[in-house]
Parts: sequence; structure tokens; C-alpha cells
Amino acid sequence: MQNFDYQTPTRLIFGKDVIGQLPEVMSSYGKKILLTYGAGSIKKIGLYDKVKELLADYDIYELSDIMPNPKYDPSVLDGVRMCKENDIDVILAVGGGSVLDCSKAIAAGALYDGDPWDLISYKVQAKAALPIVDIITLAATGSEYDSGGVISRTETNDKIGYMDPHLYPEVSFLDPTYTFTVSKKQTAAGCADAMNHIMEQYFCEDSSILNDGFMEAGLKSLMINTVKCLENPEDYNARAEMMLTCTYGCNGIYALGNSETGWPCHGMEHALSAYYDITHGEGLAIITPRWMKHILSERTVDRFVKYGVNVFGIDSTLDRFEIAEKAIDETYKFFESINIPMHLRDVGIDESRIDEMAHHVALNEGLEEAWVPLFEKDIAEIFRASL
Amino acid sequence: MQNFDYQTPTRLIFGKDVIGQLPEVMSSYGKKILLTYGAGSIKKIGLYDKVKELLADYDIYELSDIMPNPKYDPSVLDGVRMCKENDIDVILAVGGGSVLDCSKAIAAGALYDGDPWDLISYKVQAKAALPIVDIITLAATGSEYDSGGVISRTETNDKIGYMDPHLYPEVSFLDPTYTFTVSKKQTAAGCADAMNHIMEQYFCEDSSILNDGFMEAGLKSLMINTVKCLENPEDYNARAEMMLTCTYGCNGIYALGNSETGWPCHGMEHALSAYYDITHGEGLAIITPRWMKHILSERTVDRFVKYGVNVFGIDSTLDRFEIAEKAIDETYKFFESINIPMHLRDVGIDESRIDEMAHHVALNEGLEEAWVPLFEKDIAEIFRASL
Repeated sequence: MQNFDYQTPTRLIFGKDVIGQLPEVMSSYGKKILLTYGAGSIKKIGLYDKVKELLADYDIYELSDIMPNPKYDPSVLDGVRMCKENDIDVILAVGGGSVLDCSKAIAAGALYDGDPWDLISYKVQAKAALPIVDIITLAATGSEYDSGGVISRTETNDKIGYMDPHLYPEVSFLDPTYTFTVSKKQTAAGCADAMNHIMEQYFCEDSSILNDGFMEAGLKSLMINTVKCLENPEDYNARAEMMLTCTYGCNGIYALGNSETGWPCHGMEHALSAYYDITHGEGLAIITPRWMKHILSERTVDRFVKYGVNVFGIDSTLDRFEIAEKAIDETYKFFESINIPMHLRDVGIDESRIDEMAHHVALNEGLEEAWVPLFEKDIAEIFRASL
Repeated sequence: MQNFDYQTPTRLIFGKDVIGQLPEVMSSYGKKILLTYGAGSIKKIGLYDKVKELLADYDIYELSDIMPNPKYDPSVLDGVRMCKENDIDVILAVGGGSVLDCSKAIAAGALYDGDPWDLISYKVQAKAALPIVDIITLAATGSEYDSGGVISRTETNDKIGYMDPHLYPEVSFLDPTYTFTVSKKQTAAGCADAMNHIMEQYFCEDSSILNDGFMEAGLKSLMINTVKCLENPEDYNARAEMMLTCTYGCNGIYALGNSETGWPCHGMEHALSAYYDITHGEGLAIITPRWMKHILSERTVDRFVKYGVNVFGIDSTLDRFEIAEKAIDETYKFFESINIPMHLRDVGIDESRIDEMAHHVALNEGLEEAWVPLFEKDIAEIFRASL
């Protein structure tokens, strides 16, 4: 087991109707709130009105239209400007991971004098950030329980994962009923994103009874509950367990003491959605089984055997490579069964920019340090196998 | 899934030689430290000298001889007095769960004007507490990652679990090498304590893929790693995984969203160690399988089936009650295999005060609200079956 330093100070307020505690929570932070949200789904489900009603005594400034794969320009820049101009005390992010990720970058930028890109690109380390409270409406990213976010900068095709200990949300409200109206497409993509968060940590040099069992339970929870949610979008227990499983995804608790893995699928997918603005979870689902096939070897096979036997119940007496191949097939088939498009061409990506993207990933994502190192050639091969 | 409100702000610094970070951590809290420890094992392993060397620039006041089942009088009272007299800034607890539990009561009492028992007995709610940093030398209680402690008051045979959100340690140092010298008896008792923490949460009305899998992995981790630690006390990975598994025991993360269970075995064991000052983990190991037999019924059998199949690998095609009985037998046999005395008479408890203890538990522990309600008669029966 490797040494580690772990702290997640965020308070999770989880369950049906917990929104009633919002006024009490917000009362700690001052009167001026920047309310951030996306294209308007929070209006359709009545959450926007509810928040405004509960916070009638506050000065609320609004930053709307934050898009999936949230953009530095205009969203982060607009938010930072609004915080500075209006002396905002706290950010209330209402939506999915993109809204919260964007809000984290705004929170850091609001208390920094220079160009916020200095922080996101790690040129400068943030010294402080505005407090963030969030209300989550999509089970996927785990941003509600970690200190990171992913920001895209269109003109340079950059999509950067930005982490800073100042960026843990103070409080995350998680009401599974807000996810009842999430579309089948987004439910499936959220599942794939969350499954990949676990896989990025599971496929590593280490093996322990506790972490492996925790992650295998997480993977099974996501698969079984996603199928239930697709069959009955208002299955409370399925939505709730999916939400909780996603929440643990990115703060490290699934794999405390495991070695670093480099999160290779995320590294590769960042290029796909930076160049083509595809749905992150779909990009991950497409890449994952191809990456698995690419890294399967004598060195890695035992990890795939454990995955196959414990997650998919594959017969442990079979040949090791046979189990591994079956496990990869089962992974592919699961994503296919929840109607995720499983080829890059299905999401509008062709051969034309593969080499350019592979070069970009190799240059920026550090995957030569991954559990199984990936160089430009490997990345291009995985992209081509995904076409 | 039930609603929940969860926050564990403690920072875990885990691994070999992490003690080097102690000066940096302590520099946040001021110059006056109350150093708390037990009978002196920290001197034998050189940790006492190391701490004094690392903190040579601090004013260190010492409260030693904190005993297992830590006592209100003298330990808590002495500690509170020392904090008040010397204007202590921070408590540094070095030892096992008893030292840390005692230090938590001291931390709250130090900032309270009245009798500290007011706080422990919940007559008064603490408004603040001194910050606590700990260095753990025994894998068992999980006190390093929760806000509670258990304090005994000899003259009234009270042993009270005291929790308050002010009492999360600020930082917990967890170096598995400090547990290399833990005796076989205490290693086994620590395992039984930690296993029971999980069982108290596992045996409940709810069932979820994530929590059940996490807890089953925790139980398997404790059993397999304890056997390794008993065979080779310096097996780093086994000690480390055991330490991490124990750490999650009592802060709720193993069972977020599960219903309350009442922690019945702990409620009953508190009387045993209050009346007879036995080793807590041994008392729990003795009671647990008898409690299981007592509550096995049509209502509870499926939970035992899941436990038996997933933790002990019992054949799932057998009759449900047969699986449950086998699972209870396996539990008993595991404790026996790690040389825990499995009868109350083995630890000096006879029939004479059983009814008195059962009455005390029924009056004070609220077990009529447990998952399977226990009344005085039930408690006495479980105690008698444990003789």
C-alpha cells in the first residue's frame, strides 16, 4: 500500500426534499449569491423557482447557459467578472457536473487578480476561492465530492482537469428525485462516466481486498441501477444508489493507498470532446473497451481476471486470457445494452483528426506515466480501433 | 434509501514515516500541547522520543496512563484540569482508541465551564472543543475518523458513547509500522472490534449493492489480514489494509443511507466492560454470534444469507436457514481461530451479575429501538448464552 494524504471536508446532505435546509446552509455565507446553472432543465423541474423562493431574502445574480464540457470563454470569464463586479459572497451551483466544474473555476478566479487561465493551467496556485454550495441534478461526475473540474478552451482545443484543495464544495445537496427527468441518453452517459471513474482507479498495480471490493460493488451498483433507472426513471432507490455511487467517483476514496494510474481514458477522451464537443460519458464508453484490449498483456491480465470474475461473474476456472477477453466483451456489451453509441463515427468523429488528437493527448496528458504507459502511437491506435 | 447528512472533515495522513509531517501540522495550532498517551507502549517503540524530538520547540504537557475503557475519573478530569490551568492550544493523542476517546472528552471539557459529565451525558451540548491531532498505534476503533468516544465512570458502572461534531480530529496520522508490536491478543481484539463495527451496520433493514459490497469487503479484509498479521506481525501490507479498514468503522461511511440499527452488540458489551473492565473487542466477539442466533428469524434470515454467501462463500443453493446457521458458526469459528476467548467465563464473568447488567443495558442503551428490538429479557438471554 502506498502512502496517502486524504481529506474531503464537504458536507453531503442527501435525500428527498433536503432542499428545505438550503436557507439555513446559505445563511453562513453572506447575502450575495451567484446562482449558476445550465440550459434551463432546472426551470422545467421547478427547482429554479424553489431555490428563488427559499432564498427570497438574498441578492441573487445569475449565470445561466453553462454548457456540457463547460467553456472558459464565455462561462468562466463571465462568472469571474460577475463575482468581482458584484462582490459575490458564495456561489450556488445548480445542475450537473459541468455547472459545478465551471463554478469551481469561477470560485478560484473570483479571488485572483490576473487571468483565471493562469490558475486552470497551473501557472499560478490559487490562494483562496469563494465558497461553493451545490444542488446536483445529474448522477455522474462526482464533482460534488471532489476538488476538481474540467474546463474547455475552444480556440486551443484544450480540455483541462483542474484541481485545487480550495475547491471542495462546502455543502452538496443530493436529492435523487431531481434526477427522475434525466433523459435515457444522459442517464446512460452518466453511468459510463461514473463506471470509468472507478475503472481508472481499479486498473492499477495494486490489489487490496478492501478497495477492490469497494470498487467492484460500485461497478455493479452502477450497472444494475442504471438498467433499473432506464426501465423506470422514477425508481427512487435505483436513482439514489446511483447518485451515491457516482459521488465517490473522483475524490480518491475508492482507492486510498493505491498507486497513481494516470486516468488514461479520461486523458484520451478530453481530446475527443475538446475537438468535437461530444458527450463525455459516451466518449469514455467508446474508448474504454478498446483501451482495455490495447493494454491486456501478461503483466495486466490478472487484474482483468479479478474484474471479470468479481464484476461479471465469469467462471474463474477458465484460462486467464479467456476470462480477460470475456470481461472486455462484457464491458462493451453492457454499454451497448444501455444504448450508448459504441463507435466514434456514431458521434460524428472520423479519421481526419485522429493523428492531431493523438499528438495533442501525448503532449498534454502525461499518459507516458500511466499504469500502462501510452505514447502517441498507442493513443492513435486506440482512437482508430474506436472508429 | 434513507436521507442522510454526512461530513467527515478529518485529514488522514497515512503510511510509513509520515510522522515527519507532524511539525508542519502542529504549527497551525499554537505552542501549548497536551500530549496524551497510555501505559507507555509508545515509549517502547520509540514514538514518544520521536514526538518530543520533532516538537522540541513546543511547550508539552503530558497526561499519561490513560487505560483501556478510559475513565472519567481520573483521566478525563485530570486532562480537563491540565488544559484549563495551562491554557492548552491543542491535544496530541498518541496511542489507540482509548487514548483518543479520552482526549475527545478532554477537548470538549476544556472549553466548558461546568462538570464535563454534563457534556458526556448529553445534559449540555458542547459549543466548542480544543483541536485534536492523533497518532494511532492500534488498528481497531476508528476513533481517528469519527466524532465519538466511549468513556467509563467506575462508580456508576456507566460506559457511555459520546459523540459531538466538534470532536472530529483535525488530522490523524496512521503509520502501519506502529502496529507491528501490537500483541497477538490485542491484534485479534482489534479485529473483532472493527468487524463488529461493520456488522452493527450490515445487519439492518436495508440492502444496497454499494454499501453491502463495501462492508463485505471490509469484513473479508479484516479476517484475511488479521490472520496474516498474527502469522507475521511485520507484514506491512496486511497491517496497512487492516488499519485503513478499521478507520472507516464508525463515521457512517460504510452505510450511508441505511436505517439506524441501534448498535446492539456495542450496547450490551458496554455493560460487560463497565462492570468487569474486560477487553472491549473480546466482549464483542463473545456476544456477537449469540446475538446473531437470538435474532435469526424469518424476518432477518435473508440478511444472514447474504452475509454467509458473500463473506464466507457458503453455497447459495442451500436452505436459507441452513446458510444462516452456517454463517453464524463461521463467525464463531473465526473468532475462535484467532484465539479470542469465546465464553464470558473465560474473561472472568459469571452468572452473578447478569440480571443486573441486563437491567442496566435495557435502561440505558435504547436497544428496544434496535433493528431487532432487544428488551431486558432478550439481553439477559444473550448474556447467559455467552457464559
